[in-house]
Amino acid sequence: MPGFDVDQAVAQLRRVRGEWRDAQKRPREAAGREFPSRKTLAALIEQLKGALFPMRLGPSDLRHDGEDFYVAHTLDAALHALLEQARLELQYVARHTPRTPTEIDGQAREIVQAFGAALPGIRELLDSDVLAAYKGDPAAHSVDEVLLCYPGVQAMISHRLAHQLYRLELPLLARIVAELSHGQTGIDIHPGAQIGTAFFIDHGTGVVIGETAVIGQRVRVYQAVTLGAKRFPVDAHGLLQKGLPRHPVVEDDVVIYAGATILGRVTIGRGAVIGGNVWLTTDVPPGASVTQAGVQNAASNAGSPGDTLAASVR
Amino acid sequence: MPGFDVDQAVAQLRRVRGEWRDAQKRPREAAGREFPSRKTLAALIEQLKGALFPMRLGPSDLRHDGEDFYVAHTLDAALHALLEQARLELQYVARHTPRTPTEIDGQAREIVQAFGAALPGIRELLDSDVLAAYKGDPAAHSVDEVLLCYPGVQAMISHRLAHQLYRLELPLLARIVAELSHGQTGIDIHPGAQIGTAFFIDHGTGVVIGETAVIGQRVRVYQAVTLGAKRFPVDAHGLLQKGLPRHPVVEDDVVIYAGATILGRVTIGRGAVIGGNVWLTTDVPPGASVTQAGVQNAASNAGSPGDTLAASVR
Amino acid sequence: MPGFDVDQAVAQLRRVRGEWRDAQKRPREAAGREFPSRKTLAALIEQLKGALFPMRLGPSDLRHDGEDFYVAHTLDAALHALLEQARLELQYVARHTPRTPTEIDGQAREIVQAFGAALPGIRELLDSDVLAAYKGDPAAHSVDEVLLCYPGVQAMISHRLAHQLYRLELPLLARIVAELSHGQTGIDIHPGAQIGTAFFIDHGTGVVIGETAVIGQRVRVYQAVTLGAKRFPVDAHGLLQKGLPRHPVVEDDVVIYAGATILGRVTIGRGAVIGGNVWLTTDVPPGASVTQAGVQNAASNAGSPGDTLAASVR
Amino acid sequence: MPGFDVDQAVAQLRRVRGEWRDAQKRPREAAGREFPSRKTLAALIEQLKGALFPMRLGPSDLRHDGEDFYVAHTLDAALHALLEQARLELQYVARHTPRTPTEIDGQAREIVQAFGAALPGIRELLDSDVLAAYKGDPAAHSVDEVLLCYPGVQAMISHRLAHQLYRLELPLLARIVAELSHGQTGIDIHPGAQIGTAFFIDHGTGVVIGETAVIGQRVRVYQAVTLGAKRFPVDAHGLLQKGLPRHPVVEDDVVIYAGATILGRVTIGRGAVIGGNVWLTTDVPPGASVTQAGVQNAASNAGSPGDTLAASVR
Amino acid sequence: MPGFDVDQAVAQLRRVRGEWRDAQKRPREAAGREFPSRKTLAALIEQLKGALFPMRLGPSDLRHDGEDFYVAHTLDAALHALLEQARLELQYVARHTPRTPTEIDGQAREIVQAFGAALPGIRELLDSDVLAAYKGDPAAHSVDEVLLCYPGVQAMISHRLAHQLYRLELPLLARIVAELSHGQTGIDIHPGAQIGTAFFIDHGTGVVIGETAVIGQRVRVYQAVTLGAKRFPVDAHGLLQKGLPRHPVVEDDVVIYAGATILGRVTIGRGAVIGGNVWLTTDVPPGASVTQAGVQNAASNAGSPGDTLAASVR
Amino acid sequence: MPGFDVDQAVAQLRRVRGEWRDAQKRPREAAGREFPSRKTLAALIEQLKGALFPMRLGPSDLRHDGEDFYVAHTLDAALHALLEQARLELQYVARHTPRTPTEIDGQAREIVQAFGAALPGIRELLDSDVLAAYKGDPAAHSVDEVLLCYPGVQAMISHRLAHQLYRLELPLLARIVAELSHGQTGIDIHPGAQIGTAFFIDHGTGVVIGETAVIGQRVRVYQAVTLGAKRFPVDAHGLLQKGLPRHPVVEDDVVIYAGATILGRVTIGRGAVIGGNVWLTTDVPPGASVTQAGVQNAASNAGSPGDTLAASVR
Repeated sequence: MPGFDVDQAVAQLRRVRGEWRDAQKRPREAAGREFPSRKTLAALIEQLKGALFPMRLGPSDLRHDGEDFYVAHTLDAALHALLEQARLELQYVARHTPRTPTEIDGQAREIVQAFGAALPGIRELLDSDVLAAYKGDPAAHSVDEVLLCYPGVQAMISHRLAHQLYRLELPLLARIVAELSHGQTGIDIHPGAQIGTAFFIDHGTGVVIGETAVIGQRVRVYQAVTLGAKRFPVDAHGLLQKGLPRHPVVEDDVVIYAGATILGRVTIGRGAVIGGNVWLTTDVPPGASVTQAGVQNAASNAGSPGDTLAASVR
Repeated sequence: MPGFDVDQAVAQLRRVRGEWRDAQKRPREAAGREFPSRKTLAALIEQLKGALFPMRLGPSDLRHDGEDFYVAHTLDAALHALLEQARLELQYVARHTPRTPTEIDGQAREIVQAFGAALPGIRELLDSDVLAAYKGDPAAHSVDEVLLCYPGVQAMISHRLAHQLYRLELPLLARIVAELSHGQTGIDIHPGAQIGTAFFIDHGTGVVIGETAVIGQRVRVYQAVTLGAKRFPVDAHGLLQKGLPRHPVVEDDVVIYAGATILGRVTIGRGAVIGGNVWLTTDVPPGASVTQAGVQNAASNAGSPGDTLAASVR
Repeated sequence: MPGFDVDQAVAQLRRVRGEWRDAQKRPREAAGREFPSRKTLAALIEQLKGALFPMRLGPSDLRHDGEDFYVAHTLDAALHALLEQARLELQYVARHTPRTPTEIDGQAREIVQAFGAALPGIRELLDSDVLAAYKGDPAAHSVDEVLLCYPGVQAMISHRLAHQLYRLELPLLARIVAELSHGQTGIDIHPGAQIGTAFFIDHGTGVVIGETAVIGQRVRVYQAVTLGAKRFPVDAHGLLQKGLPRHPVVEDDVVIYAGATILGRVTIGRGAVIGGNVWLTTDVPPGASVTQAGVQNAASNAGSPGDTLAASVR
Repeated sequence: MPGFDVDQAVAQLRRVRGEWRDAQKRPREAAGREFPSRKTLAALIEQLKGALFPMRLGPSDLRHDGEDFYVAHTLDAALHALLEQARLELQYVARHTPRTPTEIDGQAREIVQAFGAALPGIRELLDSDVLAAYKGDPAAHSVDEVLLCYPGVQAMISHRLAHQLYRLELPLLARIVAELSHGQTGIDIHPGAQIGTAFFIDHGTGVVIGETAVIGQRVRVYQAVTLGAKRFPVDAHGLLQKGLPRHPVVEDDVVIYAGATILGRVTIGRGAVIGGNVWLTTDVPPGASVTQAGVQNAASNAGSPGDTLAASVR
Repeated sequence: MPGFDVDQAVAQLRRVRGEWRDAQKRPREAAGREFPSRKTLAALIEQLKGALFPMRLGPSDLRHDGEDFYVAHTLDAALHALLEQARLELQYVARHTPRTPTEIDGQAREIVQAFGAALPGIRELLDSDVLAAYKGDPAAHSVDEVLLCYPGVQAMISHRLAHQLYRLELPLLARIVAELSHGQTGIDIHPGAQIGTAFFIDHGTGVVIGETAVIGQRVRVYQAVTLGAKRFPVDAHGLLQKGLPRHPVVEDDVVIYAGATILGRVTIGRGAVIGGNVWLTTDVPPGASVTQAGVQNAASNAGSPGDTLAASVR
Repeated sequence: MPGFDVDQAVAQLRRVRGEWRDAQKRPREAAGREFPSRKTLAALIEQLKGALFPMRLGPSDLRHDGEDFYVAHTLDAALHALLEQARLELQYVARHTPRTPTEIDGQAREIVQAFGAALPGIRELLDSDVLAAYKGDPAAHSVDEVLLCYPGVQAMISHRLAHQLYRLELPLLARIVAELSHGQTGIDIHPGAQIGTAFFIDHGTGVVIGETAVIGQRVRVYQAVTLGAKRFPVDAHGLLQKGLPRHPVVEDDVVIYAGATILGRVTIGRGAVIGGNVWLTTDVPPGASVTQAGVQNAASNAGSPGDTLAASVR
């Protein structure tokens, strides 16, 4: 009973890998680990969640009197794990323009130090998100239910951490963190998106928020909402232009109901309400209500457009 | 090579936690575990799945002649784990109106006893769901493929367990169970939803079913279907009114194709067919076909509206 | 403090299982494992991912000089694990028309041998998918980010493996692999779908691609796109006809924006662009642009329909 | 930075393995697992210990009301694991005189059935050993301390299980079980040794008891006691004679103090006391006291030979 | 292919357990966990070893700058785990003379608090033991080798922890800790033994030290040394007298070579040397050398008795 | 219910660690891991055992046709793990006389390369040990039983690996490997001991073999045998002299029965037999039999001294 022809498959896989590395101008033989690790980052995010919310997301046998010991040890371990991943990303970025290990290490340490210092502020932002979810959903029984259960809150924990990594110029780590959360919640927020306090995503599956989106305070969105770009801007030579603002600006207190799609660098004015399944590629004035049937100014919004607006499910 | 300033981050995180607890009127120092644990509930649900379907969802080395031993031991362990989580929820609920541990324990035991007694009935309901999936999808090769593969069936296992917890007045545990399933399947069913036998969700990603929805027998829904609420009802003082029926009633034998959105306490009559992407906020008579183009009565449904109705993918 | 009435629940669960087995004409007592195992297949897919992309998806401490050792050992283990699962599926299929263990084993070995031999070709296809994602998304920083992060690429790794199992007549294993990926990415591709080189799915949540879909080269689709069937074809006796082509054919270089739904055995011509949220049940000529407003022929496509077409989010 | 020359080491190790297999007349290529597994047996023994003493050696969260469920499931799993190991030993024994798998399986099943039926009797014997330890050691605080702590008791649990395997003609499994216990306790009892009720080994390190030793009831031995063979008996042709009784017979109520060595098929009469470090190769009459200084008949034992007898450490 | 008769074995095992509980006057049904857990204590001791020697016995990725965080969190967790085990022992002791949970909890907390406070002193003692091993063994290359490798040092870490538990009146926990170490090192020290600073056990297998032994400073012993009791003292009624001093007193700077056996409440005077395999039941004056050939006074020790004294193996 | 005063214990433990580091002239703050890790070495030895004896000590699901893949991957992983540990030891040795990381790395690589190249020879030696055990023990049923069960064989696997590390100047790693084996088997062999082919240790508990011992071919020893040093040689200044030969030389075909103690640089001549419990500090001529009663020359050995010689237990 012979085995399978593993040797041949191994040889051919080596050939294909070699061709790939040649095509990508990578060395066929490298010294060690070259890429950050999804698995390590997944574990690290779990540690940070525990450090941010020890009694609710930390180990189930934690007690109040041991919180600080747990937070300190966990944070220390998580920041050193992050240091290693940060070095890998910086080294990877420098693969074409080599830098000394000392330079890379120095920059990585500065970044991680700044990241650690930002965590208390992130916790405050997240507390505002939790309160927003609790207030925004009449079906919520308590702030703790919201933190333990709501995928929108889980997504925001990951996003606020990923956004910090993005701002500290670790876009690859930021993206891995964002995609880990996307996989778990079905909510896809680019780590570059700027989101104000007290943001609430209900249900969440299918939500997509793009890199240059800017979202104000107390904004509420429902499942399957897209804040996307129109066609990518092309320059005179027909090349894609990167880095331009190309996603919506959503001002304070806006509500966007399920399935709405808003594309391009448009502005949704303060307090506007965008109805379910609406397809929008233009600015919306403050206070307006937009439904599949059209736009109503805030002034004329005395009627009850509610039927066509909402697709909340509570 | 100094470490990071962990001490400062720890101190600031403690301050932020303290402010949160003060704002939420929680004690800064508590005696022990205060909240149910997602991780424990996830493990418990896996045990219950094994106890319900030992040969198919239990351990891969189980044999027929050991089924009852496995079921008994697993059930015993799962029910005691549930008892502990039930105590935590009841205690949490009683944080403002303290009760004795004995009262809480007594109630928790009664609930868990009732939950255990309901399991055989739940298995029967789930068998009807499995058969519905098998019959409803011509691409299905066997009832076992359906149980092992279909996310809609996985979601129903979790929902029928979560709904039982909800009925037994453990809404927080119910919600955690529901959201664990939501994260795995992309199907978001509130544990309060009442769903009859032989329910089939195909594909499933993006389905949302609200708390007061009532679904009859042999109903079939496809991906991205929403059974939601319109704007929340407000009373004379402008306050949200909780607990009112606000989601659709779907009668027996209805089919709802992908992307359809049905909002409010409307009734979809027996045997009606709701086409893909339809946006509905009114009642539909029995036997009617609703498409993006409009409603057809059953009587006039001799034609072939199929093109616009379906978005099945098999 | 008595325990719960586990004995009674066990007895009733046994009764329900017995009734199910009787109704399904299964033996009440069988010799051993009857079904493939999701858990085993999940582990096996992780091994294959590592064998295909050792430095990026393999163990984090792997080094270049140990790649072949790792690939050989992992592949050997994975193929033998697959052999066992293949035997289980073949045996399961043969439950009504018994075959000898030797026959089953022989066929299983042939299948696994062919599967192993196909892996280098699968790696080449996946490399084309990775490049397509890198080129198709201006926000992508590197091919490695794309491989590590993009759910669309993760989904294609699983799909190309599952499709190979499907072609080798292990549809149940193929389906389990596909649904494991669906659960992780929200992307639901039936293992039967035929997909050409350089396929790119962006964001991905809610994408559904049916069994008989045929997709050409360099095709790009966005989140929530459905390539589905219309109503199932029925024969003269009113019975469902299985196996007929019933999903779209998408030719080379087509782009389909977010939320578009294409149903039935229609053909989307080479280079066509299907706008966001479009609902399509007819053929589209090569080069055409289809928006919610209607179809434009390629010839007349000089204007800028971009606003209504795209729902990209980068 | 090249790797190590693994390929060469692999090739040479293959050569050495091949030479060994040739010399041992083994096939160079065999179909599957050939030998029982230490690791599997170690796990199995832990399961059996739990099944025998559920509240004290079982899982730490077991409760009285779940004992039988735990015992049944654990026993079922352990007996099936044993069945697999028994098959491997029987098949291994039959490597020179092949038998059909059916024959081997049938015999293995009979053995395992008999083994399971013997467990209640083994528990009773072990209860007598625990009581003997408790009574024999004035420093013992409780029977439970004795069961949880005393290596002599741990060794007897393993021995009584191993002896049962030995009697059921699975000497290889028996030996592995015995050596696992030897490694943990430093007590080396051949699984063939016949030991009566209420046997107590104190401290235990260095105790060695041979295959044909026969030990009565209520016997007590201390650390470093040897019950061994003299030179192996040789027949007329100078060949070793196997299977002959060659270790001591120790009658009821004998005490043997630390470091004593008793060699050959001698009989230590009922109630005799053998002092510390004594070297003995002759019979001892009932009731006698043997010290390094010589033998005293029971009749003349009015003095106090205690000083030279004991090496107890309590 | 029927299974084994598990039901019958379960029933008979239940009967035997019931008989045991009746005979031991235990309730047949109890509320919960009754006994401390070996497994929990084993994990706890590993935590304490890490907290005592973080860089050498803690996690392999620990860094100096994270030591205190690790120590604090580990200690906090270990002390709470100990609290639980302490409660179990106190409750077990009180099984015949019930006390309130509050009383038990209060006493357990006091004990654990005292235990935690004793740890720094224990570390200092252990540092003296490490130095003694380093100085006493010319083959030792460094103090760190001694700590990482020497079983005698491992045994002393466990003993000094176990002795503290013994002094704090948790003799059952102390005994379990001692036997765990005995199993790993072959060194059997009763937790009651009082041992001064800078104690060194070389090789160690077979060493046995009794409960009331008193050992001074800078004492050195080799493998298979016994410090035991003679026959247990019996009172006028023939009953064993517990708690009386019955093991040797070994004064400062004594050396005891391999295999020596010293029995009873004798005193080995300061600086005495006991040769290999010596059997001793009488006092030895300070400075004397005892060999198998007899005792030499220190004064006359000008010769070279070394040949018969030593059995060091370095 | 306050917690324990962990902060104070942490502070005091820090003080004690600081004092220790000061006394040992170690930096209070170091950059990273300083010491080899017992745990890592334990895992590494398990890998090497598997690579040496894949079908018998490797994973239980290994098949012949996958042996080389397993051996290659395992060896590659083990050698790289060893490289890391070797670096740690070399760096540790260089703590007083710093060397560059490049020097250390270069030396570590050479050592590991040499170690890998030695493995096939080690396997050949171990095969001779296995055969010796099989031939030497009439109770052994097969060579495989011997390899799977006998602690003496387990000890020799570890010793032959440790001895190779010792010869390659990694004495600390060698010692850790030796002590791990000592803990498991009770057999204490210094890694420096030179041992010829076909060495057999029966039972083994309590065996101690010193650093400069030299053992020929086909030697057999029983439990509790010591091959030790007399008093350490002291030079003119009273200082211990290191590195001198100080343990016995045992020539080919010698048998040493249980409990015998041989001390100092004496020579046991070819074919000599040393009886049980003998205490020896002088040379023994070839062919002689030594018993507790005295020495018999080979010539006069016509009688039967067997009674006093043996303490075998088979």
